[in-house]
Amino acid sequence: MRRLGELRRRLADLSLDGVVLTESANVRYLSGFSGSLGYLVVGQETGEILGDSRYWLQMEEEAPAFALTRSGASPGLWQLVAERVRTLHFNRVGFESQHLSVDMHSRLRESLPSGVLLEPISGLVEDLRMRKTPEEIRQLRRVAEIAGRAFDRVRSGLRPGLRERDVAFLLEQTFRELGADGPSFPTIVAAGERGALPHGLASDRVIERGDMVVIDFGAEAGGYNSDTTRTVVIGEPNPRQRHMIDAVREAQRVSIAMMSPGVAADSIDRKAREVAADLAGPDYAFGHGLGHGIGLMVHERPYLSQSDKTVLQPGMVITNEPGVYIPGWGGVRLEEMVLITETGSEVISPASTQVAVE
Amino acid sequence: MRRLGELRRRLADLSLDGVVLTESANVRYLSGFSGSLGYLVVGQETGEILGDSRYWLQMEEEAPAFALTRSGASPGLWQLVAERVRTLHFNRVGFESQHLSVDMHSRLRESLPSGVLLEPISGLVEDLRMRKTPEEIRQLRRVAEIAGRAFDRVRSGLRPGLRERDVAFLLEQTFRELGADGPSFPTIVAAGERGALPHGLASDRVIERGDMVVIDFGAEAGGYNSDTTRTVVIGEPNPRQRHMIDAVREAQRVSIAMMSPGVAADSIDRKAREVAADLAGPDYAFGHGLGHGIGLMVHERPYLSQSDKTVLQPGMVITNEPGVYIPGWGGVRLEEMVLITETGSEVISPASTQVAVE
Repeated sequence: MRRLGELRRRLADLSLDGVVLTESANVRYLSGFSGSLGYLVVGQETGEILGDSRYWLQMEEEAPAFALTRSGASPGLWQLVAERVRTLHFNRVGFESQHLSVDMHSRLRESLPSGVLLEPISGLVEDLRMRKTPEEIRQLRRVAEIAGRAFDRVRSGLRPGLRERDVAFLLEQTFRELGADGPSFPTIVAAGERGALPHGLASDRVIERGDMVVIDFGAEAGGYNSDTTRTVVIGEPNPRQRHMIDAVREAQRVSIAMMSPGVAADSIDRKAREVAADLAGPDYAFGHGLGHGIGLMVHERPYLSQSDKTVLQPGMVITNEPGVYIPGWGGVRLEEMVLITETGSEVISPASTQVAVE
Repeated sequence: MRRLGELRRRLADLSLDGVVLTESANVRYLSGFSGSLGYLVVGQETGEILGDSRYWLQMEEEAPAFALTRSGASPGLWQLVAERVRTLHFNRVGFESQHLSVDMHSRLRESLPSGVLLEPISGLVEDLRMRKTPEEIRQLRRVAEIAGRAFDRVRSGLRPGLRERDVAFLLEQTFRELGADGPSFPTIVAAGERGALPHGLASDRVIERGDMVVIDFGAEAGGYNSDTTRTVVIGEPNPRQRHMIDAVREAQRVSIAMMSPGVAADSIDRKAREVAADLAGPDYAFGHGLGHGIGLMVHERPYLSQSDKTVLQPGMVITNEPGVYIPGWGGVRLEEMVLITETGSEVISPASTQVAVE
């Protein structure tokens, strides 16, 4: 397992004897186990997966590279983790401080001999996950393609009288018909003034002629997620709608052009924000981050935001989603999934970008 | 707000000046805000909701009883929490140690003056959430009813040749047609030998005549969840299938009869496990807990398990889901949602319990 080898190199760099991994996307990334509760205990020579009876068979099937350690009601999972750490004679053990709760950490701490040092390794596996493998890129292209085809199909049926909720339902239904396991997140459909809610879930609001509609959707298959946003107008856009859409398009165009190896995430975010503020007005430009990595989680590192200085590298897949939001009037958001290549970037979200729905 | 009054009484009992709440179901329970990221800072006289620009409008709409404090990229949400705690002159502040990560706790700790004490209040709001209000019970009945109607509709169309995945898809589609927002969790459909996986998500396996099929499904609407399991046989059950189904039914019958105010959760779990082991064989009886509270979360307190001594009270809604799992052969699980009443209990999950599908 290449991923496990990479993890072990990092552990050696940090002088850790081993690591306890509890976050489900990290567990899946390293082991293949896709259930909701399973822990890994990994050392230089060993790799074990610990789970309760609900998941034993699934762990054997999905995580054959890991030795299965079965937990019962007693000893529970934490006692078992501690027992493995003791048996393996680990002295310095990493834990996921970004995910492990204060209570769980206390429980682990109390189960271990006082000589064992627990070291926070916030973001260690997330760091590995930033650069996607060719297989992961294939999976991400596939879900983006499914979502795009579903959008194009549903888009052609958009008409006044549908509720936002109907549109979301049709999209999610089509994801599955096209082979996805389901939506990556509850589909956002926000029409008219509701478009000013950056996270307005689909409601009972009826879509009317002239409405601008923000549709933010993603499909999930095999654990991988897509995330795309389109803004359409039912009929011909009026001048203000057109202006705001053009403003967001320009912010997106300029910032996607910057997405290349060697460029810092925050500088891309800053540029998109400036363009949106210039063209749409500073009160209306998006307050959220410009984008986020995507893979086993819909939101993962790196983030295109003012606080993330990550330098982009080939193999990263990152969304680009500028917007403008005008309370009482509506909003525009456009989102693409962007693969960082050796020389620049490639948009891998193929949904139609046409605005006017006839 | 009755719920807020109850929380303030608990804070007073614990001599806390205020509390910082970050877990989204707890935030929703107290404020009404249904977005994914919003924090509450609550004192005896004050209640504030803190969020970033994505959610400001939604917070104003959904959480009118709370003062909205807007965070930008800078100061971020944690700095803002710390600023509010300082401004309100809180000295002893509770935090959700069950949910807050070690890293987030450190960030909060570092932002606060050293004189401020941060006290873990693991499970404080979850404790309030155990006894459902009449409005919550109405919502839970509604989602259980939707899921039951959807199941009955899909059940009548079950036939050899469908894939597990098709059945899951039809169920989730029907949930929405009947008014749900979506499934509460990825629907489990596990046919034949896959029934031995207690959490076997629907796969491409084709359902065949004679298969026993475990279907575990839930619908979500307005934030509330249902969770029901049925086991059916495509055709007439053979003697072993019949025997295992009867064993689980008996474990369920006996343990539901025990579900009354004043009875300890662990004693109910123990009884069901004994009956299942007696009738089906000790190697096959379920290893998972017998049940869990359900509400804003699919799994919440109390748990019918060997480690939960909670005494049942009227208003609790708890699942009862014994099972038997036989590797290589298959499994049976039956699950009801049970409302604890003043005098006993009421099953509120109406899906058909008939086994044979013609």
